This record gives sequence, C-alpha cells and structure tokens, in this order.
Amino acid sequence: MTDPTTSPVERAGPDETALRVVRMARPRWGDPATPAQLPPAAAALIGTGDPGARRGVNIDEIGLADPHVPPAVRAALIDALGAEHVTADRYERIAHTRGYSTPDLLALRNGDASDAPDLVVRPGSHDEVVAVLGICAAHRVAVVPFTGGTSVVGGLAPERAGFAGVVTVDVTRLDALVGVDEISRTATLQAGLRGVRAEELLRERGFILGHFPQSYEGAGLGGYAATRSAGQSSAGYGRFDEMVEGLLLATPRGTIRLGTAPKSAAGPDLRQLVLGSEGAFGIITEVTVRIRPVPAHRVFEGWRFADFGSGAAALRALAQDGPMPTVLRLSDEVETAIGLTDPASAGGDEVTGGCLAIVGYEGHHQEVEARRAAASAVLEDAGGVALGPGPGEAWRTGRFRAPYLRDPLLDAGVLVETLETVTYWSRLAALKTVVTAAITDALNAQGTPPLVMCHISHVYAAGASLYFTVVCPQTDDPLAQWAAAKKASNDAIRAADAAITHHHGVGRDHRDAYHAEIGDLALEALRAVKRTLDPDGVCNPGVLLGSTRCSPPVHPVSTRSDVARPAGG
Amino acid sequence: MTDPTTSPVERAGPDETALRVVRMARPRWGDPATPAQLPPAAAALIGTGDPGARRGVNIDEIGLADPHVPPAVRAALIDALGAEHVTADRYERIAHTRGYSTPDLLALRNGDASDAPDLVVRPGSHDEVVAVLGICAAHRVAVVPFTGGTSVVGGLAPERAGFAGVVTVDVTRLDALVGVDEISRTATLQAGLRGVRAEELLRERGFILGHFPQSYEGAGLGGYAATRSAGQSSAGYGRFDEMVEGLLLATPRGTIRLGTAPKSAAGPDLRQLVLGSEGAFGIITEVTVRIRPVPAHRVFEGWRFADFGSGAAALRALAQDGPMPTVLRLSDEVETAIGLTDPASAGGDEVTGGCLAIVGYEGHHQEVEARRAAASAVLEDAGGVALGPGPGEAWRTGRFRAPYLRDPLLDAGVLVETLETVTYWSRLAALKTVVTAAITDALNAQGTPPLVMCHISHVYAAGASLYFTVVCPQTDDPLAQWAAAKKASNDAIRAADAAITHHHGVGRDHRDAYHAEIGDLALEALRAVKRTLDPDGVCNPGVLLGSTRCSPPVHPVSTRSDVARPAGG
Repeated sequence: MTDPTTSPVERAGPDETALRVVRMARPRWGDPATPAQLPPAAAALIGTGDPGARRGVNIDEIGLADPHVPPAVRAALIDALGAEHVTADRYERIAHTRGYSTPDLLALRNGDASDAPDLVVRPGSHDEVVAVLGICAAHRVAVVPFTGGTSVVGGLAPERAGFAGVVTVDVTRLDALVGVDEISRTATLQAGLRGVRAEELLRERGFILGHFPQSYEGAGLGGYAATRSAGQSSAGYGRFDEMVEGLLLATPRGTIRLGTAPKSAAGPDLRQLVLGSEGAFGIITEVTVRIRPVPAHRVFEGWRFADFGSGAAALRALAQDGPMPTVLRLSDEVETAIGLTDPASAGGDEVTGGCLAIVGYEGHHQEVEARRAAASAVLEDAGGVALGPGPGEAWRTGRFRAPYLRDPLLDAGVLVETLETVTYWSRLAALKTVVTAAITDALNAQGTPPLVMCHISHVYAAGASLYFTVVCPQTDDPLAQWAAAKKASNDAIRAADAAITHHHGVGRDHRDAYHAEIGDLALEALRAVKRTLDPDGVCNPGVLLGSTRCSPPVHPVSTRSDVARPAGG
Repeated sequence: MTDPTTSPVERAGPDETALRVVRMARPRWGDPATPAQLPPAAAALIGTGDPGARRGVNIDEIGLADPHVPPAVRAALIDALGAEHVTADRYERIAHTRGYSTPDLLALRNGDASDAPDLVVRPGSHDEVVAVLGICAAHRVAVVPFTGGTSVVGGLAPERAGFAGVVTVDVTRLDALVGVDEISRTATLQAGLRGVRAEELLRERGFILGHFPQSYEGAGLGGYAATRSAGQSSAGYGRFDEMVEGLLLATPRGTIRLGTAPKSAAGPDLRQLVLGSEGAFGIITEVTVRIRPVPAHRVFEGWRFADFGSGAAALRALAQDGPMPTVLRLSDEVETAIGLTDPASAGGDEVTGGCLAIVGYEGHHQEVEARRAAASAVLEDAGGVALGPGPGEAWRTGRFRAPYLRDPLLDAGVLVETLETVTYWSRLAALKTVVTAAITDALNAQGTPPLVMCHISHVYAAGASLYFTVVCPQTDDPLAQWAAAKKASNDAIRAADAAITHHHGVGRDHRDAYHAEIGDLALEALRAVKRTLDPDGVCNPGVLLGSTRCSPPVHPVSTRSDVARPAGG
C-alpha cells in the first residue's frame, strides 16, 4: 500500500505528467507499471496518427490556488487527527482532485486542478471521521469523502460557492477487517479498504466478497456503498447494495448504525437510504457484508448469438427462469467486432458477425457443473453456439483493463468514454437504439463520427443494464465535444424513461437528469433528510442532491397544490 | 366481494357479536362460515372449561361516540368522491375499527370501539386519494389507510389528540389489474386488491405473484407494501419488498412515482423508503410487482429433525449454499408436539419428540425434481428424516387457518397471541431462549403458565425469523395480562439486539422499541421525510414514527454534540 505520509512527489520526478502522479497516489487503477496497448482492431478503425500527439501537461505546469481553509479549521483538524494526517501538500491535493471520468482526465491534462481540495485529511477511526465532520460543519467547510477516487460521474467535485474551503476526507486508513461471523456468513469491513485488499483479507479466512466492478483495482468499500456499485459478477454474487447487511454512517450530527437484522418489517429499510447517498448525508465508515466460501471451481465460457436480440432473449430466459450463472453479459455486434477485451483470443471468425456472450460460473464443483449444464441447455435453445473457455478466460483475465486504455487513446487524439443505463426488458431494444442514435448524432454533428459499442452488463428478472463505450477522434475542445454527446445521451435516456445510471452513480454529471427522474417531491424529501443529518450542507455539496443551503424551507405548505402531479407524472 | 354500499347490519342481525360483524366486513379472514375447531392436543393441554365462557358483547352493546368530523370536511369528501362513498354508518365504523391482534379482538369483545373512525371513505382512483388527503390535511383530520384491516400491531389505531377527527380511507375500490408486462414479467396492480383476487386476476393471464402471508385471505396489496410483508413462500418467491419494482404514493402534497428501472445507482432506493412506511408518508395506491408463470409442479414435504438446533443448521445450509426450496420452515419441539396445524396428519409418532420442518417446491417439473433431490441430500446430511408429503400437504392446506382459531380460544377463556422477530444465524438460538423465557416469566408471574411455541418462518443467507405462538389461560384482565408479556418480549428482543418485527410491522405496538432500534438521528431523518410529504402530520398519526406535530424543529444545530454517539452506539 502507499505510505500515506509520503508525498507522491517523493516517488515521482517533477517531469511526471499530472495523471501519472494521480495514478501513483491512487494505487493500481491505471498503475503506470501496467502500460496499456490499444488493441490493433480499435487502432485501425480509429486510424489515429501520432500516439503522443495529445500528451498532458507535466505536474509542475498545473496551476493550483493556495489552500484557503481558515487557520482555525486546520488547527482543529490537526488537533483531532495529528499533524501527519492533515496535509496541504501540492501533490496530495492534485492527487485527490476529481475522479477518473474522461472529462476528469482531460481537465487535468489541460493543467486544470481548480477542483483540488484545500486540505487532505486521513482520519484513523470512525470517531475521528465524526470529529472531522463536526469541525467542518462548524466552520462551513465542504467535505469530500474519498476512498479509491474512481468516480466517473463527478462525485468528487463539490461546489465551492458559499463554503470556507474544501477538505477531502481520505478514509484509506480505515482499512481493517473488523470481524467475520462465519455462522451468519457476514464480515464487517472498514470503508477505506480497497476491494483488492478486502478480498485478500477475506480469503485468508476462507471467504470472498465477490464484488468486482471495473474499478476493482482502485475502488474501496465505502465508495462501493456510497455509489450503489454493481460488480461484473452481480448475476451470482449480487449488487453491492444486496450484499450489505449493515452500515455505520458518520454525519455532522453524529452516528447512525443500521442493520439490526438481515431483513425486517421494522419500518423503511434505512440501509437503502444511505446506500447511493454519495456522501451527501455523511461518510460511511464501516459495512457489514455477506461473504461466501472461496469457490472451488470456476468456468468462464464464450457463446455466440446471431444478433443482439436473440442474445438478449437468452440472457432474459436465464435471468427469469434460471439457472443464473455467476457472470452473464452480452456484447452487441459492434463491440464484438472490435473486441476491445482481447480480439485475438475472442474466437476470431466464429465471433465476428454475431454477438459474444460471456457466461461464467463459480462455486462447488458439482453445483457448478449442474448449473452449467442446465444454463447451457437454455442458451442452446435460444440459438447460442458454445465457443468454449477461450473467450471467457480472455475476458476474465482482461476484465479490469479497459480503463487503462483511455490514457494511450487520449494521448493519440482519440476520445473514449463510457456511460450506462438500465430499464425493463420490454424496453431494452428501444433504449439501445435511441441512446446509440443520440450519441452518434451529437458526434456526427461535430464532424467526429463515433463508434458506439454496447453490452448488457447486468441482468435482473425484470430488466437489464446497457453499457455503452464511445470512441471517436478528438476535436480541438474534447471537453465541449463530449459534453454535447453526454447531454444528448442523458436526454435520450430520460425521454425513454430509463434510469440515468445503472452503476456509475449520479455525482454532478447526472444530477439534473436524476432530479427529473425522481420528481420534485421525492427530491424535497431527500433534501429534508440531508438537512437533518447535515444542517450546514457541508457534506459533498452539489453532488446528488444539488444545493441544499439555499433551498426553500422544509414544508412550504403554501405550494402544496403546485407540486401535486397527476398519477402518470 | 362485499358490496361497499351495503352496511354489514343489513347482512347481520343485531344479535351478532361485534367481531362477527367486523369479520363480515373484512371478507374471508375469520369468515364465520369457516368455524374453527381447537385441535384436541391444544385443548387438552390448556384444559379449558366452558367453550363459550368469554363470548364477546353483541354489536348493539358497543358504545360509539357520534362522529365529530367538521361538516365542511364531510361535504368536501362527498363532493370529491360522491355521497355513496362517504359514510358514518355505525357498523361501517365498527367494522373499520383497529386490526386483528388479540388485544384488538379483546377490546371489541369488551365493547370498546373508541378507536373507530368518524367517517369511512372509499375513493375510486389515485387522484381521489390525493384529493382526500388534501382535504383532510387542510382541516387537520387524521387519515387511516385501510386495505384488509389485518394489522396485528396497532397499525390502524391513530392518535386522535390534536386532530379534528379520523377518516379511514378504505382503498378496496382500487381493485384493478392495471396491466401485465409479459416480457419483463411484471404486473401493475391497484393497492386495494386483496391478495386472493390479485392471484385470481394474474392466474387468468398465466402468472402468479406468490405472496402468501397468513393474512392472505384478508389482506390487500397496499397493506403488503406499507407493512413490508413477507409471505410463507418467501424462500422461493421473495419478500414483498423484493417483489416490488414500482410504487405510486399519494401524499397530502401530491404524487410520488417510483421504479424507473428494476435496479439502479440513481441515488438511494426510494422504494425502500416507502415500503414499510405504514401510511405515515401517505397512501400507496398502486404497485408494480414481479410475477412468474403459474408453476406446473408442486411438492410439499415434511422432514423430522432430532432437535431445533440440528433443524436450524439444515435450514441454514440450504439458505447459504442452496438449493433454496420455495417454502422452508421449522417448528420447535413444543410446536411440533402441539401440532397446531393438523396433528392428525403431521406424522404422528414419527414427528413427536423432534422438530417438524416443512419443505415445499414449486416450478417446472424437471427443475422442481432436480432442486428437490439436491435439497433432500442437504437435509439428509444434516440429520433430517424424510416424512413424505403427508405433513407438507397438511400444512399447505391448513396454512391460513391459525388466525381462525383465536376466536374459539378466546371464547373458551384461553389467551392466544403471536409475535415474531429476526436476527443473524449466529444469534438465533440465544434469541429464542431469551424471548421464550421473558414471555414465560411474565405469564408465570400472573399465575397463568403459558405454552410458548416457536418456528423459523423465513430464512435468509445471513439469518432467520422466529415466530412465537403463546397460549395460556386468561386472567380477569387479559388485555393487561398480555400487555405485560408483550412488554417483556419487546424488552428481551431489544436487549438481544434483534429486530422488533420481522413481518408484522411496527404500528403502535412496536413503536417505542423501533425507535430504540434505529436511534434518535435516524428517527429524526424519517420524521423530516414525513414533515416534507405530510406537513400537517395527518397521515396515520402515531403509527411508526410517533407524533410529528409537536416535534422540535428539523435541524436543531445547538444539540449537535448531544446526539453524537460512539461507534458502538
């Protein structure tokens, strides 16, 4: 692990690019020791020129304002945490600037660190997190929670207006496995544990969590919970919100502990109010999660379908009638042809011209083989052709690599970004069509025709998610270029009445669409919760709920009739 | 269905007991046409005398205050709904008084209808429900939502203090199957549909919901949702909160529609905030739920275990490693011996001396038989002895009958009541011990030694519920007698850090324990939601959240340090 007391600059020279420094401070995700190669098929289709044409600025070229947190705040934080856990170090501030979306990468490449926090603090216990929140609330300093820093939706870029500064609370010192209940098959883990380390600690006890988002090598458990993460094995192990049995939340007004029982009828399920709250109510410091024995047997296979529609029907059959594999995903024709994962191993001609599904199973040997036989029969009935383990294993070993491709692509003048949504099965095909068209039209209009690839990344009995990858040449202003495409996509998703995000979260990038999705009255209820737990509005301001400090009073009775909507609203 | 425009008195003579009239107005659950016999084993153990010793008062003996809703409210309601859907009829008011707990039955037997509503209204659409809520809020009239009236936790007994009257909103005219999405396997159903009718309507389309709580013959979908119900087939079909994809909530400030997608990362899951809200935020008028094809094959079997511990271990093995049956429950030694379900068919000597488990499977023929074979191997490995379909079918056919037994038992001077809780597997045995002891001690102290029976009613990977049935002779004041036992049980459950209810809900009976369970800060957050949606506090006041009209302001910053709790709090 990174020694938190050592500045990244002590490990990197001043000629390092800003992004390289950020990567070093957020270990593993985008580790420069793992250079990424653009797959030949993708490079050929894009037809780029100079692979270093758009290299970002060096670390010393970044403009950074002096930290302007009031001295009393810094003193109080040092008093609470110790001086070694409170820093205004330039490189630490840059390393904690924003997340990992393509706009985030582009901004830092441009030397823009205007969202950098003034201070970075590393509390060592739940009580220290509560203390930090109390200090910041008392002085109206905005607080950004930070585990892996892998947000791709602007979840780490708070509003500054009206605040006396911004403090990032890096919880990675909260990295303990608190306990394992082997009888109940639960583990209590601190929120700063990265996913990789959590799995290592659990494996020593014979268990796994089974949560593998694409950000797995960088993200941490607090982030999983705060963003309602879903991993690539969600078909078998569930979404993160389904794994969580208990939560410990630090707020400016104290502590909430949830999860008395796995399930109950004791009122609303408040765990589901905290999950997905993205730091707006406080900071999650601990989670109790379901664990499972380390699987003894694993099979990952490829299946070919003639087209996306028949493949989707096959996935739906498994999701609705079973048996459910551990991993289940389907690339569309374009994504299959490009084969971003590893086209050389992905079945070659067998795959080209159709759609590749990845179907994986983990568990006891006998159980896996029985499930695999039954699922294979369903897939064959639906027109699937078995491709064997080659494509499955290629996907499995490369499955965390796609984010690493973005840097060389951006270096080469290629814009690449992803987005995702989710809807019911009956609307899935239409949603794919309109989102693809919206992105394509928005980028065609800028003279940069894109490749839009899509896969079903997660399946449920009632619906499925669609994950889009967009690749096109950069214009001179790739931030504005992508903003237009993203707006078109958000608008299309809302017009289709699909959810604005399946697993990336809301952050700032999806905020307006999210508010439209849930409606004014529900938003007002969430803001009332925030005002209760965070009356000064310092918790990750601007993210998820927008501004709550200037909102109208909690119950404007006079507007009652104005907000009434018809049943279909 | 009951004609809502006909008073129960037109179908019953004035010599009917109060409870009989209530039963006639809430069809099927406790239908007097289905008289219940006390099983001989139970009767013998109790050793009761005169079966009619404690018969309740006749309907005309009930004291009922004149309805005191302001005339303007009644006029506005008639204007909104039509005169035929607004009534102050004496028998309607009595029929909508409280729910079906033993204290509820005892109170009405005593002639106490002090919780009767002043008016009963039956809106015919979501918009009419919104209108009713607006009228009542404007005039500070309390509103009680009513579907089947089967609450056993005081969920239908609002606080009157500070309100200009009480209106019960009977939603049973909202009884439409709005639509079926066969591709996504969802159905949209209005909240006033009783469970029985919902299954009939779905079956015509080839589907089932699969939700079978013990109140199935009386309860409705709105109640299922508002109380976070769990049915007897929850192992296979899930809890009701897991079935719900979408919700329509009418509040005094308008409408909230939730469920854009089956799952998403778009903020907190607000569906889980409305589920379990027990009318405190408004009235649920519509739900969209998962449906499944009508199962072609069904097997229900009995299994014998030497003791409760080995049986519980077997259930845990299935819940954690699978395969999961559709129904899975385990009676303890006492309940098995008493055989309340049907001792004559429950295996006789084979069962006595051990613990009876009911294991049921529903689905496609081949899938059921494969699952049954695999589950049977697990049960055998755990020491189970197969008893064949006799006990399983006996349980299945009698499974909604237990509530019917209470009236003849109460008539005979026997007190009978149930309660339930849920915890993690590692704490289950200890919880059973302390709750049993608390109830036993409390009733022994009153000179009425009880029989305390228990079964595991619902299983999860991480834990299970415990359902207790208590039988003992009545004292002269059975309401006070049970109140002492219930308080002892609540205290024991809280001291064991288990949930105060698994599927009965909070109502008024569990309210204080619920508040202790979630803590002050979480309670304050829920009250903030209520104040946003129901600023006048008219929605089912006193239930779940307690009084919100006299609460302190939403964010008392000055008390911030007072509410901070340590991590273990």
